[in-house]
Amino acid sequence: MSAAGSQGPFATFCGAWGPAVEAALRDLLPPVTAAPARLHEAMHYALFPGGKRLRPMLVLLGCRAAGGDPGAALRAAAAVECLHTYSLVHDDLPCMDDDDLRRGRPTCHKVYGDALALLAGDALLTLAFEGVASAGVDAVAELARAAGSLGMVGGQVEDLAVEGDARLHSLERVQWIHDRKTGALITASLVVGARAAGGSPPAGLLELLRAYGERLGRAFQIADDCLDLTGTAVELGKNPLADVALGKLTWPAMVGLERSLGTARALADEAVALAAPITASTLAWRGEPGPALDATRRLLQDAARYAVERRR
Amino acid sequence: MSAAGSQGPFATFCGAWGPAVEAALRDLLPPVTAAPARLHEAMHYALFPGGKRLRPMLVLLGCRAAGGDPGAALRAAAAVECLHTYSLVHDDLPCMDDDDLRRGRPTCHKVYGDALALLAGDALLTLAFEGVASAGVDAVAELARAAGSLGMVGGQVEDLAVEGDARLHSLERVQWIHDRKTGALITASLVVGARAAGGSPPAGLLELLRAYGERLGRAFQIADDCLDLTGTAVELGKNPLADVALGKLTWPAMVGLERSLGTARALADEAVALAAPITASTLAWRGEPGPALDATRRLLQDAARYAVERRR
Repeated sequence: MSAAGSQGPFATFCGAWGPAVEAALRDLLPPVTAAPARLHEAMHYALFPGGKRLRPMLVLLGCRAAGGDPGAALRAAAAVECLHTYSLVHDDLPCMDDDDLRRGRPTCHKVYGDALALLAGDALLTLAFEGVASAGVDAVAELARAAGSLGMVGGQVEDLAVEGDARLHSLERVQWIHDRKTGALITASLVVGARAAGGSPPAGLLELLRAYGERLGRAFQIADDCLDLTGTAVELGKNPLADVALGKLTWPAMVGLERSLGTARALADEAVALAAPITASTLAWRGEPGPALDATRRLLQDAARYAVERRR
Repeated sequence: MSAAGSQGPFATFCGAWGPAVEAALRDLLPPVTAAPARLHEAMHYALFPGGKRLRPMLVLLGCRAAGGDPGAALRAAAAVECLHTYSLVHDDLPCMDDDDLRRGRPTCHKVYGDALALLAGDALLTLAFEGVASAGVDAVAELARAAGSLGMVGGQVEDLAVEGDARLHSLERVQWIHDRKTGALITASLVVGARAAGGSPPAGLLELLRAYGERLGRAFQIADDCLDLTGTAVELGKNPLADVALGKLTWPAMVGLERSLGTARALADEAVALAAPITASTLAWRGEPGPALDATRRLLQDAARYAVERRR
């Protein structure tokens, strides 16, 4: 499973729920035989085999934190992964980052051509909203805001705008971009999961998940930029040093590798501390037994450490 | 207003509701001053000034047919127009139809570049789902199915696949493509509107709207393909003969202009007949007074004629 390398409870959780997430993805997607077959092939190609499946696992964790059974959030989890995958397919297009390697294979447009890759991305984004409807209208709106012009797409635009122009680089700006390009969807994953549990989330939970998700997203993206400098193509499944080649604004480009990793670890520590109140005694939970909440808290805390310590 | 040229009740309806639709669009979109400003400029550029705004008007009509106040469907109407506009922006991209004129002005990518046009389209698609959430999860799922790989995107893929390959051209195939590329969103507009009225739609209404929308969509697309042959750039706001230049599969390319217009008129007649049962006496309506339903029926019937008789 994706979280291999770490032996903590989050890796165990990912291993346990991984097959169900894959099944939910296959259930949400039309089969490759449905017309137009070539479009559905391209969508399947982009999604399988997957990467870390981090975001769907965060959906399941968010559901659990709200006292729900993760199984109730599987369709929403698959939806969020479709949305993440659309963003990768479009980012890789020639008019964007023009990448030719992703998840260890040629990118979608290298195999299916630019037009079909564009449309496969459009279809995956659309399918994400069909899937997240299962978690209710609040989840739909949450995901749309996180993924839209004030969120992920906005971050992507700014990321392209500052590319190669060092005069525009500052730590404030890199954080602004990361919060939208990466953090918004990570936070939305947790909140969508909490919504999928049904009913009203426990008091204070959404605020807690948002604060936790913000730190997790920042730590994750800084670690990602560091991996771009230190990882191999085999480890990463994509070309290393791609950010450098494009003149991307990254944390290590601004302050160096060591200080970046220190910042990522400090952010993970903040996320760990933010997850601490998730116990039966400190938040008014919906009859969730104490031991289950303690396990959920440990999972969130371990996920934060995983975001920084992973090798890919 | 867009329906100018016709003097029927549908044109009057469009004239009356046009300003409210524009206001709903401006309300749904972030302002151009929001960061990233250039992205929001591109989104506004693609949306304003608009085209016929046919689909949002069909949303309002669908709401009215379900006994709702069209005002309750304005946000959903704006959402559907955002979705339609995203499809135009992406269709115009160089890797797709490579068009340089749309709604009488340079296409979005000609002004903002390919990357920003791609992302503005992505953001408009995402925003559509934020907006349609106002009409409930059934409306979200309806719009997603209509716009996705089994609907609009699927039709677009097949449209590109048969382009310039006359061996693949048949009337069955052109209808398959039109039903998805155009008809799916037109039908979904009516159904989303009915959902926006709230509660359960009157028995039989959704089936009626689907059957009506199928004919309306087919009539509209055939008329559109005929206009491509007969209209001027000024009338159309886009380059005429573009379909011919691309070797597109169209109804007039298969059977000629006269027979195509005859088919379009026959489809409009079918739509008119399908709308006939919308009276208080034949469907169990939710306390809607007879005269209002009669007016709704006339609006739907006039919209079908408008689809064929319009000049752009």
